[in-house]
Amino acid sequence: MPRYKLTIEYDGTPFVGWQIQAVGASVQGALTDAVERFSGERVHVQGAGRTDAGVHATGQVAHVELAKDWRPDTVRDAMNAHLRPLPVAVLAAEVAADDFHARFSATGRRYLYRIIIRRADLALERNRAWKILRPLDAAAMAEGARHLIGRHDFTTFRAIGCQAASPVKTLDRLEVEQVPLDFGSEIRVHAAARSFLHHQVRSMVGTLVKVGEGAWTPEDVGAALAAADRTRCGPMAPSAGLYLAEVTY
Amino acid sequence: MPRYKLTIEYDGTPFVGWQIQAVGASVQGALTDAVERFSGERVHVQGAGRTDAGVHATGQVAHVELAKDWRPDTVRDAMNAHLRPLPVAVLAAEVAADDFHARFSATGRRYLYRIIIRRADLALERNRAWKILRPLDAAAMAEGARHLIGRHDFTTFRAIGCQAASPVKTLDRLEVEQVPLDFGSEIRVHAAARSFLHHQVRSMVGTLVKVGEGAWTPEDVGAALAAADRTRCGPMAPSAGLYLAEVTY
Repeated sequence: MPRYKLTIEYDGTPFVGWQIQAVGASVQGALTDAVERFSGERVHVQGAGRTDAGVHATGQVAHVELAKDWRPDTVRDAMNAHLRPLPVAVLAAEVAADDFHARFSATGRRYLYRIIIRRADLALERNRAWKILRPLDAAAMAEGARHLIGRHDFTTFRAIGCQAASPVKTLDRLEVEQVPLDFGSEIRVHAAARSFLHHQVRSMVGTLVKVGEGAWTPEDVGAALAAADRTRCGPMAPSAGLYLAEVTY
Repeated sequence: MPRYKLTIEYDGTPFVGWQIQAVGASVQGALTDAVERFSGERVHVQGAGRTDAGVHATGQVAHVELAKDWRPDTVRDAMNAHLRPLPVAVLAAEVAADDFHARFSATGRRYLYRIIIRRADLALERNRAWKILRPLDAAAMAEGARHLIGRHDFTTFRAIGCQAASPVKTLDRLEVEQVPLDFGSEIRVHAAARSFLHHQVRSMVGTLVKVGEGAWTPEDVGAALAAADRTRCGPMAPSAGLYLAEVTY
């Protein structure tokens, strides 16, 4: 039973999220159907991580086990043919070791969060970024972000329903980059860790935006973290700005 | 009668093009309706240039003349409120001189053409770039492009129905830039001139892709130009990759 590692891109806008749900189109469901249509097999498509409704991926990873020994490029091309016209694409398919597990073998995950600061609504980047009207102080946001890097109890930045065994995670990277645009500017928040709690990135970004607006000081972020209290979190950033960019093994 | 200069962004995918047509939604029509909804006036929205169906803009310019003296930011915000949910946004509105004309006062136009080279269909950039399966030789394309820079009879690169008085234009810039991606690469063609013939950019890009594929030599581009014969043009590049990026005055 060969196992395949799939690297996947998707526009999360039309989906209820990664995971198959009772109602609504999911990315996992689309991939499961695509595998069945070319191979005749109904298999479990195991993702590296679940993304919420509206969250995008440029480097989600999943694995599938198939009965027949397909060439990896055939798996990629056949899945893409059957995924059309959905906005999901298999960027790469590789043969993986029998014990490779997209979720449990992962040693790191990297997310990108995009904020566009301008007055006008987004036309070309609609559903692809969080539009904010007023300028944000990116340097203050970066200073706030430094309070979150390292090993901490991230209860403040964790969804109420999060099923992780422990709220303690090690955040390896949380960088705030500002890119000038012809009209306004873009702030890109890069986050990397071995794993994240549910809603952790959007909770951290929403909190950093409070700092960027001047409503919070950078030190307030450290105090909110130390409180280990969900009610101390800033408002959660919307899903449309979030991208699962890379999973490393 | 104050005159306003509008800078406009749009996703061209759902439109029949810039210009109002008998049937179908146009960008000009959307802007005309938005002006009417906030001002009560049915005015002519004069664009700097017509874009075809599926062509995008990050910096289209138009002018309108209104009876009432609105604050420019009010014009921008009110138009955006009435444009929602269409993918058209007024990035900026400014008061312009009475003799300012979006089309005839323009001294330069800049276009971007995006090509993404990879196997998988585009999920996030669908309708925003031309996807090509096989690698292109960007250096050869750049060499081919140099044959087109300067003042020439561009009949070869002109739509049959083009209404310009003369096929002679001065192409100031035609640059080919290659950007590596995690999967594949992107080729960006930057074109600038005082004005362009109808379909000129897409005709030039389609021809340069023949060079990138190795089917044409860079010198073939010069020969096709010199022939001043539409049948010598390469296949026209699709509209989805083209962006009107800037109009200068």
